[in-house]
Amino acid sequence: MSMRRIGAWVASMMLAAAPALAHAAASSEQQQGMTIFQHGGHGIQACVSCHGSQARGGMGPRLAGLGRAYIIRQLHDFSSDTRHNRAMETEVKHLDATSMRQVATWIATLKPHRSSQSPRIKSSISKLITEGDWSRSIPACIDCHAGTLMGDSDEIPALAGQQHGYIAKRLRWFKALKTPFGPPARIMSNVASQLSDQEITDLAKALSSLNGTTVSSLKKEYSGDLTRHTGIKESKKISPSPGAALPISKPLAEAIQHGEQIFMNTPVQARAYVGKNSRLSCVHCHLNRGRLATAAPMWAAAIRYPLYRKKNHRVNTLAMRIQGCFRYSLNGAPPPPNSNTMVDLIAYIHWLGSGQVMGSQPIAHGFPPIAKAAQRPDKLRGADLFRMRCALCHGLNGQGKVRDKKVLFPPLWGAHSFNWGAGLHRVDKAAAFIKANMPYGAGNSLNTQDAWDIAAFVESHPRPEDPRFTGNIAETTRRFHPHRDVDFYATSHPQE
Amino acid sequence: MSMRRIGAWVASMMLAAAPALAHAAASSEQQQGMTIFQHGGHGIQACVSCHGSQARGGMGPRLAGLGRAYIIRQLHDFSSDTRHNRAMETEVKHLDATSMRQVATWIATLKPHRSSQSPRIKSSISKLITEGDWSRSIPACIDCHAGTLMGDSDEIPALAGQQHGYIAKRLRWFKALKTPFGPPARIMSNVASQLSDQEITDLAKALSSLNGTTVSSLKKEYSGDLTRHTGIKESKKISPSPGAALPISKPLAEAIQHGEQIFMNTPVQARAYVGKNSRLSCVHCHLNRGRLATAAPMWAAAIRYPLYRKKNHRVNTLAMRIQGCFRYSLNGAPPPPNSNTMVDLIAYIHWLGSGQVMGSQPIAHGFPPIAKAAQRPDKLRGADLFRMRCALCHGLNGQGKVRDKKVLFPPLWGAHSFNWGAGLHRVDKAAAFIKANMPYGAGNSLNTQDAWDIAAFVESHPRPEDPRFTGNIAETTRRFHPHRDVDFYATSHPQE
Repeated sequence: MSMRRIGAWVASMMLAAAPALAHAAASSEQQQGMTIFQHGGHGIQACVSCHGSQARGGMGPRLAGLGRAYIIRQLHDFSSDTRHNRAMETEVKHLDATSMRQVATWIATLKPHRSSQSPRIKSSISKLITEGDWSRSIPACIDCHAGTLMGDSDEIPALAGQQHGYIAKRLRWFKALKTPFGPPARIMSNVASQLSDQEITDLAKALSSLNGTTVSSLKKEYSGDLTRHTGIKESKKISPSPGAALPISKPLAEAIQHGEQIFMNTPVQARAYVGKNSRLSCVHCHLNRGRLATAAPMWAAAIRYPLYRKKNHRVNTLAMRIQGCFRYSLNGAPPPPNSNTMVDLIAYIHWLGSGQVMGSQPIAHGFPPIAKAAQRPDKLRGADLFRMRCALCHGLNGQGKVRDKKVLFPPLWGAHSFNWGAGLHRVDKAAAFIKANMPYGAGNSLNTQDAWDIAAFVESHPRPEDPRFTGNIAETTRRFHPHRDVDFYATSHPQE
Repeated sequence: MSMRRIGAWVASMMLAAAPALAHAAASSEQQQGMTIFQHGGHGIQACVSCHGSQARGGMGPRLAGLGRAYIIRQLHDFSSDTRHNRAMETEVKHLDATSMRQVATWIATLKPHRSSQSPRIKSSISKLITEGDWSRSIPACIDCHAGTLMGDSDEIPALAGQQHGYIAKRLRWFKALKTPFGPPARIMSNVASQLSDQEITDLAKALSSLNGTTVSSLKKEYSGDLTRHTGIKESKKISPSPGAALPISKPLAEAIQHGEQIFMNTPVQARAYVGKNSRLSCVHCHLNRGRLATAAPMWAAAIRYPLYRKKNHRVNTLAMRIQGCFRYSLNGAPPPPNSNTMVDLIAYIHWLGSGQVMGSQPIAHGFPPIAKAAQRPDKLRGADLFRMRCALCHGLNGQGKVRDKKVLFPPLWGAHSFNWGAGLHRVDKAAAFIKANMPYGAGNSLNTQDAWDIAAFVESHPRPEDPRFTGNIAETTRRFHPHRDVDFYATSHPQE
């Protein structure tokens, strides 16, 4: 990638992240944008001539439903040789940064129509949309484009109801991309390169046929076949359990399903036990519903516990380990072992463990070990990397993203994130997680040093207090945070 | 077996179970017995001439250390053509029932010397003594002959330090027995028929070389090889776990070992959670340390939970199921899920599950189903059967047996037994357990009707109140004991 392209990309990121304009200014910006959109001017054709009067598409794709920052980035990409389309490249020559913001602000106010088609979608395509196919490192579409597939209203585009020809064209463009840079291109080229042409066609048609509320009706199957979900290569795959085919009693099936709901949306489904400010769910560390081999998979936990843990100097049952997650990672309170929350989570985890041999070494567990950093991890270098590689999803302030009252991307520090007692507050653990799993669906694309630097940056920020805090920082440091080289607890809490 | 032999056997049981004599009478009986033993008379040779002055053996076997009831039974057996030895058959002709009791009373006061040999015992023989070999339905010697191998001081003979030639001869005699009747012969002929001649020789020498305190030093191995322990035939055996060969962390190994100790002696090892009068341990229902396939094996529980249970109308984790055992079967209080008691039990149970596939159907679980009774189960017929088949171990009053402060045989009813909430209080469950597992080590030797009748007799007795008792018997019956045909709760609690 040329320096020019990188520069343009970073600039667009900066613009996208600019603080919200004051209401009056915004209103004026909207007016200006509407004028350009409807009438053109200064050498620009009216946008409506290709995109339709309400931006619901015509010769060109639907723009209504796309977010302001996303549109700005696309315009910059057309103007900086990063994205190619003859018509658009011609138009953007006449737009300066200000008019790009104006027209984007206007388009972002337009509402897309809801598709009125009734979707008839192959189950394999439904699965791609709602679960992904992690054996090919394909995350679910809904994981980033939101449960409604309407995007995040800012930087991640809406897919539901978009013209299928346009979606297919974009996927083919991503598939052909040689040197993807930054999270959207990196992730999408990763995804598209795994899709066959037929899948691209089918997927584009399926997405086009959906509207924001029909996505949730896509069939979700408890097939018990873990091989598609773990991200493990065929040669090492987990055998499907003969038991998974057994009839499961209805109450047990309900417990498993509710366990998965808790896993996917913990603050809502297990409200009593999650810290009131926390926005984290189990799935934020245990990717792909707890199945991904490189992200502390639950099928491994199911056969590894009871286990001795240095953290509390005793043998822990699975229930005790889960209590630890609630106390530290979710900054809340341990669910009582016989509570429905705990029982259902355990039912889900054991079900994920179907087919595993008790007492055997699972083929993966925890995070894969990361090599030592060649240079001491540097949080300033990490800050630059974070802006380029991570901020699209996690926000420039690590705040994550909420969409439709659900957390789309988890906050990495601050009041809504895990506390100083969580394992992931350690730089080494965070680096291992990042290296293996980030950007989402494109694990192992960062180099080792970058992963360490990003981890150092993330972990240098404030977060909720360690619940083991003794009232004395020096003592808490000594007892619970003795590893200064990977633990910023002490430096984030200046000694009294 | 001739009716004469059965009659003699029952008569000897009755004698053995006669109420303890008052002290003075006992003392006089002892004196009379001593006289016969030392000097003979009435045509009888002095016993000392073969058995030695302190009955520690000579030409004949050691008698010191044998219990009164056991000796009386042997004398009756010699006199009734049930047991054969030319010298003894000649002698007993001159003994009436009174002099048999007298001489037995005297012998029972004599103390055996402790063997001074230092035992060097093959590990396979150590295993037979301390664990048995349940793949051949051989219980451990210590299970009936007590942890010291000194028997129960009444009806079950001491083995430690006995002459090895005598032990071997007795085992060969049991091995040759064609129609064993009643628990001692039934159990011992079952055991002996499984032993090779070499094993009989080795085992006899080993037992002879032990004294009451050296037994506990026999090596016990955590081999993780379950095949020898489950009592399942080769064709259906459980594969040893690859994981069992993994190095287990020391704290986890200690938890597993302590879990087994709790399992084997629950009132002592988990005192806080066992009812203060209870004399039951986990192993009393879950035979062979929780391994026996026909006695609710723990390796099955390890992969079956979480599971929906009608008993409490919800999905239960393994911990919740164990809490149920403590509340009902042990008439106590549920151990908190994070207590050492619970954690160590779960560690033990999961370890027993090594090699099992999570989510698969275990090759056995619970008790094997029993066929319906041809006739309505009859507790009076059951009472007769109980006296003949069960009382030797469990006592005529179902009180079980305690030896060296440990429960050798569990109480089946009364204050020390399980309460009205335990699953085993149901006649159908008890019948299934009895049919598959009783007499100990000789499961499936009772016919189906007998098992039902014995169960009906056992379950018709009083036992501790159901902890779910609502204060109203009719209501408790309706809510928790609706199955009148298999549940004596209501008839044992006359309606108010």
